[in-house]
Amino acid sequence: MSLTLNSLKNIPLIRQGDPLADILLNSLEQTNIQIQDDDILVLAQKIISKTEGRMVNLAEVAPSPHAMEIAPQTDKDPRLIELILQESNEVLRIRKGVIVVEHKLGFVCANAGIDHSNVMGDGNENEEYVLLLPKDPDASAKKIREEIKQKTGKKVGVMIIDSHGRAWRNGTVGICIGISGIPALVDERGWTDLFGYTLKATVVGVADELAAAASLVMGQAAEGTPAVHVRGYPYPPGEGSLADLIRPKDTDMFR
Amino acid sequence: MSLTLNSLKNIPLIRQGDPLADILLNSLEQTNIQIQDDDILVLAQKIISKTEGRMVNLAEVAPSPHAMEIAPQTDKDPRLIELILQESNEVLRIRKGVIVVEHKLGFVCANAGIDHSNVMGDGNENEEYVLLLPKDPDASAKKIREEIKQKTGKKVGVMIIDSHGRAWRNGTVGICIGISGIPALVDERGWTDLFGYTLKATVVGVADELAAAASLVMGQAAEGTPAVHVRGYPYPPGEGSLADLIRPKDTDMFR
Repeated sequence: MSLTLNSLKNIPLIRQGDPLADILLNSLEQTNIQIQDDDILVLAQKIISKTEGRMVNLAEVAPSPHAMEIAPQTDKDPRLIELILQESNEVLRIRKGVIVVEHKLGFVCANAGIDHSNVMGDGNENEEYVLLLPKDPDASAKKIREEIKQKTGKKVGVMIIDSHGRAWRNGTVGICIGISGIPALVDERGWTDLFGYTLKATVVGVADELAAAASLVMGQAAEGTPAVHVRGYPYPPGEGSLADLIRPKDTDMFR
Repeated sequence: MSLTLNSLKNIPLIRQGDPLADILLNSLEQTNIQIQDDDILVLAQKIISKTEGRMVNLAEVAPSPHAMEIAPQTDKDPRLIELILQESNEVLRIRKGVIVVEHKLGFVCANAGIDHSNVMGDGNENEEYVLLLPKDPDASAKKIREEIKQKTGKKVGVMIIDSHGRAWRNGTVGICIGISGIPALVDERGWTDLFGYTLKATVVGVADELAAAASLVMGQAAEGTPAVHVRGYPYPPGEGSLADLIRPKDTDMFR
């Protein structure tokens, strides 16, 4: 079993409306990778959000009374808090520097996944701009997958990832926020182990494992490698979705 | 940037006292991999625990009153609960089928990481045996790393991984429980992004990201591939430790 991850070379700065599938195919060529059936492309949330126009100028956001009320408990700009509230179903924890929410997409995360870094505004005002998550990342992944199929004839999987903190471990890790053409979970309950003993409890978060692997190759800062090509993923194609990865509230250990 | 993970072929069933470094080097040869400086070996917790004799026969465990008291709230064998309590600093949550604890090793996990699967007892009594985590996984990783250095002259990193559930996401993922020769976290605070914007908050759990990647290649059940060779890890050698990955209680979002 061999799994290989390559970051794609020469991905340009992405702007709203850019033809992402064409850009990816061009970068694959420049990286000397010939796309094959069952390959997977893992994409950083940022480039999806940018093509989909999810940048917001903080100067144009008016904080609500609720945002103003929360502001003293954290060290955040009330306008950013307002966006976090707008992007969330529920606020779960407020600490200095972090607001843990259930995002409208269903998952628990810090600051509604709103991102300051690698977002360019106009001129020197770049810190005024922030980037929201894609509105429907599964659909975004599916669109790119279908465009690649149409342009190359190849059946690939596409995954969109972000970096999240964990409840009880230090450091962020890559996690899947959108998926198309590959399974999100693999249910090994009922499989037998080396001694024929039946596994009772293992459902593996394979999409999050792949997201973590791709995140390693992307890096976080100035490298500018927001897309990773994966070959050798050990699970067959399938139709995973973000919803598969979200723990139902009644089994959520956090709430 | 290219990261490649290969599962090692022909790892035999591991028994207490087996010379693990020799077994790994033999398997690397059979997998046609020549070990190099900066390569990493990622090992499933099970093979470490087995060589270190961490198997316990449940038939020899007498459940304490505390274990008996907890038993009705879960569906677990009181003898297994007794071992979970012995292996833990603190019980954090009790649910049907799962006891969330702070393990003596410091991290939060389900059922103290005690494992039923892939553990062979004598004859038909195999379900009586369970496997505890290694006593000091950082030391176990260091020992293997040093033996490989001594036998081959190569400076490799060694990581020991397990599979953990998450508080608010479905599916288990590979996580690091022992590490030697590579960093566990990479602190990107102060690095600049593509636009020169300084990153404020990103500490990346790179060891857990690599653990997740390796877990994908290992599989969980009958494949019998408890060791993975990694080449192309994008961070320089360093001295990480399990402790780096554990959130201090005062910033733990769970408690």
